[in-house]
Amino acid sequence: MTTAELSVLTLQCPDQPGIVAAVANLIADVGGNIANADQHTDRDSAVFLQRIEIDGAVDWAAFDSGLAQLIERFSMQHTLHRPGTRDRVVIACSAELYCAADLLTRASLGELDVDVVAIVSDKPAAGELAAQHGIPFRLVVGGLAGDARAAQEAAFAEVLDELEPDLVVLARYMRILPESITLRWNGRMINIHHSFLPAFAGAKPYHRAHQRGVKLIGATAHYVTAELDAGPIIAQGITAVSHRDEVEDLVRKGRDVERTTLANAVRLHLEHRVLVWDNRTCVFA
Amino acid sequence: MTTAELSVLTLQCPDQPGIVAAVANLIADVGGNIANADQHTDRDSAVFLQRIEIDGAVDWAAFDSGLAQLIERFSMQHTLHRPGTRDRVVIACSAELYCAADLLTRASLGELDVDVVAIVSDKPAAGELAAQHGIPFRLVVGGLAGDARAAQEAAFAEVLDELEPDLVVLARYMRILPESITLRWNGRMINIHHSFLPAFAGAKPYHRAHQRGVKLIGATAHYVTAELDAGPIIAQGITAVSHRDEVEDLVRKGRDVERTTLANAVRLHLEHRVLVWDNRTCVFA
Amino acid sequence: MTTAELSVLTLQCPDQPGIVAAVANLIADVGGNIANADQHTDRDSAVFLQRIEIDGAVDWAAFDSGLAQLIERFSMQHTLHRPGTRDRVVIACSAELYCAADLLTRASLGELDVDVVAIVSDKPAAGELAAQHGIPFRLVVGGLAGDARAAQEAAFAEVLDELEPDLVVLARYMRILPESITLRWNGRMINIHHSFLPAFAGAKPYHRAHQRGVKLIGATAHYVTAELDAGPIIAQGITAVSHRDEVEDLVRKGRDVERTTLANAVRLHLEHRVLVWDNRTCVFA
Amino acid sequence: MTTAELSVLTLQCPDQPGIVAAVANLIADVGGNIANADQHTDRDSAVFLQRIEIDGAVDWAAFDSGLAQLIERFSMQHTLHRPGTRDRVVIACSAELYCAADLLTRASLGELDVDVVAIVSDKPAAGELAAQHGIPFRLVVGGLAGDARAAQEAAFAEVLDELEPDLVVLARYMRILPESITLRWNGRMINIHHSFLPAFAGAKPYHRAHQRGVKLIGATAHYVTAELDAGPIIAQGITAVSHRDEVEDLVRKGRDVERTTLANAVRLHLEHRVLVWDNRTCVFA
Repeated sequence: MTTAELSVLTLQCPDQPGIVAAVANLIADVGGNIANADQHTDRDSAVFLQRIEIDGAVDWAAFDSGLAQLIERFSMQHTLHRPGTRDRVVIACSAELYCAADLLTRASLGELDVDVVAIVSDKPAAGELAAQHGIPFRLVVGGLAGDARAAQEAAFAEVLDELEPDLVVLARYMRILPESITLRWNGRMINIHHSFLPAFAGAKPYHRAHQRGVKLIGATAHYVTAELDAGPIIAQGITAVSHRDEVEDLVRKGRDVERTTLANAVRLHLEHRVLVWDNRTCVFA
Repeated sequence: MTTAELSVLTLQCPDQPGIVAAVANLIADVGGNIANADQHTDRDSAVFLQRIEIDGAVDWAAFDSGLAQLIERFSMQHTLHRPGTRDRVVIACSAELYCAADLLTRASLGELDVDVVAIVSDKPAAGELAAQHGIPFRLVVGGLAGDARAAQEAAFAEVLDELEPDLVVLARYMRILPESITLRWNGRMINIHHSFLPAFAGAKPYHRAHQRGVKLIGATAHYVTAELDAGPIIAQGITAVSHRDEVEDLVRKGRDVERTTLANAVRLHLEHRVLVWDNRTCVFA
Repeated sequence: MTTAELSVLTLQCPDQPGIVAAVANLIADVGGNIANADQHTDRDSAVFLQRIEIDGAVDWAAFDSGLAQLIERFSMQHTLHRPGTRDRVVIACSAELYCAADLLTRASLGELDVDVVAIVSDKPAAGELAAQHGIPFRLVVGGLAGDARAAQEAAFAEVLDELEPDLVVLARYMRILPESITLRWNGRMINIHHSFLPAFAGAKPYHRAHQRGVKLIGATAHYVTAELDAGPIIAQGITAVSHRDEVEDLVRKGRDVERTTLANAVRLHLEHRVLVWDNRTCVFA
Repeated sequence: MTTAELSVLTLQCPDQPGIVAAVANLIADVGGNIANADQHTDRDSAVFLQRIEIDGAVDWAAFDSGLAQLIERFSMQHTLHRPGTRDRVVIACSAELYCAADLLTRASLGELDVDVVAIVSDKPAAGELAAQHGIPFRLVVGGLAGDARAAQEAAFAEVLDELEPDLVVLARYMRILPESITLRWNGRMINIHHSFLPAFAGAKPYHRAHQRGVKLIGATAHYVTAELDAGPIIAQGITAVSHRDEVEDLVRKGRDVERTTLANAVRLHLEHRVLVWDNRTCVFA
């Protein structure tokens, strides 16, 4: 039985004795079985985090009512995902298409269990790619400053609101988003940045990596927050480089790291393996 | 609070509903708190495995009696480690000293929380190293065939029996052990093999790797069993090589992988993070 | 100036003093400049291998005649690639499409500078993928034994002969090839095997890796030779796994390693960076 | 024949056609053979860099005079290292001893071909380690501010001047050096910083990495320059971490990366494989 066929419960609350027993008892009492469980207590913040995969002939009404009591008792935040629903995803990109193309290929081969509902872009480049995969393409062009920028941002926000995706993936969407958008999609918008953050946040990381003469380059997938490239990190990847690598070699090598790191982060999110607290992530991989 | 200050319970038994709840209840009932817990159910063999770190003001008499009931009920195997005891370790090596030297340095710097009670070797090379660290050196020379071999093996077995270590680490001890020894120290003897097993099991793996033209070499730390290089794998490491690397370069690069992989495996074992079933390991890292 | 705009000379011959000077003099004498050079002398076989990127206003007629003298003098094998020609590639696959899809995406985005002239398969699965990319699809079905197998192999060989590609990429083409084909395409046919060879050569490597309990899985791209999975290794990749990973998780994680390793090997081949001698490769990366 | 038995010539100069031929001709003319050669032209700065290993019955007087002409002609900087000399190394450390201990073990096992002439420290902790290895220990205590700091720095500088090492290795020497020292030992002083620079330059990188929630930590070995943690990078290493890792786990995991990265950088330097230009390194590994 794969994850997609199990119910997934995630929990987080202030740590105290008895949480594990209480949750395990509830699941056992309503006829469930714990297929997998993973937990973590963050020492500094004394936060308890848990992810449980449940199977068995669960009496879900009894479960819901028992869970409500636990939530009250332990001041829990929780999510519960029943099998059989597919997340609706919007992919946003600009002129570089390799991350978007990679995600579409994975979706079409069933590696990512999602419905890609649209590709949204500020550049026309992705139109052909969208057509190739039979995905709607939404072009939201606009300027980078002043009113033209504000108009573009409003149009982008509107498209997202209209599409109502479960997840927005910024697959090399090369615009800085306003706080109105980052707040709106908090915890549901993943970006790929082409450096191992916090090194080389911001623009042109490969150029700066080349100039600094680093021997490793990387990529970072993170939830988007108001502060640029500073949101909770979900996954990071890295590859070795040398003096022989010009900037364009870093770009080429980095592409493979970006693709893989982003796809990995999206999968972890879709499987409800990522819990966020204190601007950090707990990744129950 | 570090792992060394917590009690560690490990469990394995046939999987069935209710195990997690029963164990969590027991711990809560006797005044304990689950500081960390990790569990795994192996799908094919339907075996449940768990590792729990316990703190709090535990009533250990009540715990022991409650645990006895669970063991009966679930047909459990278990181990329980209370803080405050240091494992006694014997390091065995031959002419190459880098793994032994690395372990001794880690022990002396407190990175490995052990008492190294002796270095045992079939070669005199390690004598000086042992003296440098103030560790008893036991030389057990002997032939590689016939009676001379049998005598060496008997002497080696006798030294181990006399020293009664909690763990024997074969840190480049270049002799094939008889089944009498591998059975005697089953689950308590770790070997480092200088290849990523199952590739290049047996003699001269770096020579064979060079001849095959591989682009990666590795090392494998595993529990020793009767079959050569076929025991449960605890940890593996790897490093990139190229056509420029002669056999001696593979040896040099491999040393760093061997050292780190072996030290890592020893630490995992000492922290009771490795459970074995079905000739495989569950490593709760 | 990128590699694609330079002329590339590769050489190999028995080692002796004076080769580097002779070649460098020739290039300087005909007006060329050495943009990049990489060389290696294999100690055991005393073979000298070199790859040189040449730019400048070269008098190619003079170069050719001078090179002919060097070839005579040093008993050289050589290749010379002038810029402006694109390799024609055939991709062969079976039911699993992720490697083929990845190569096609890279070709369409310009990451691989090739003309994919056809997808050839023994299964119909890739037909849609080929159509999506506007690439001819050649279906060559047939049995796995006896006359049916021989017929399939003959048909496959015929398609390749007809297409006359510069390179055949076996992107998860799950059939063992007869020696007639492996000899015919010697040095021009690259396969991806889903293990870090020489571990788990042959069928079902991920199942065997799971059963052995390894902590690392990998993939190997190699030139195809008569002996199964024993040809010269071009590139290998690896990723970490744990007890949590079922066979299908190994398959999933391995896919990313396979894709990246194969694409990397194909690129290295296309840029004339791979020299083969003694069933090993010199990869001037 | 290993590197230690070959002569090593390194060159760097403005790029122009004919350098490779001129150098190769000189070596051939004086009876030498190019055992290995590696070169690189940096496109942006148009700098040519080369490292050549020479064997054969060289007429060194003729070589020297020919080389002088080439140096004039091409405005070269060069180094020439004849076999048979061992570099004299000073190791500096503070309270953490694992990097120093690792270097000493490598030196005593012959992995690093050096004479460690002294351990210098601002803390007494390393005294026992030095005694264990029979190495002189020079304690240079002092304050961190004002006159006390200046006095410590002067004493440290004096010890180095007195010892006249070929290389100073800062193996976790936790003091910021004055420019007078960094200039004096420019290109001959290697530091290990416990982060993948440029991320987390400065103090407490593991604490900051933990707070930022990164999924990778690293270490960087670099030549020391006046600007803190900003000198030319020789080598970088990295390891994966997760939410489970507390700061002390990052410290533990990081130690292995630091040790290996530093030892690797020291070896590369000792083998004359590192050329510096433009605050970057060319590492002919």
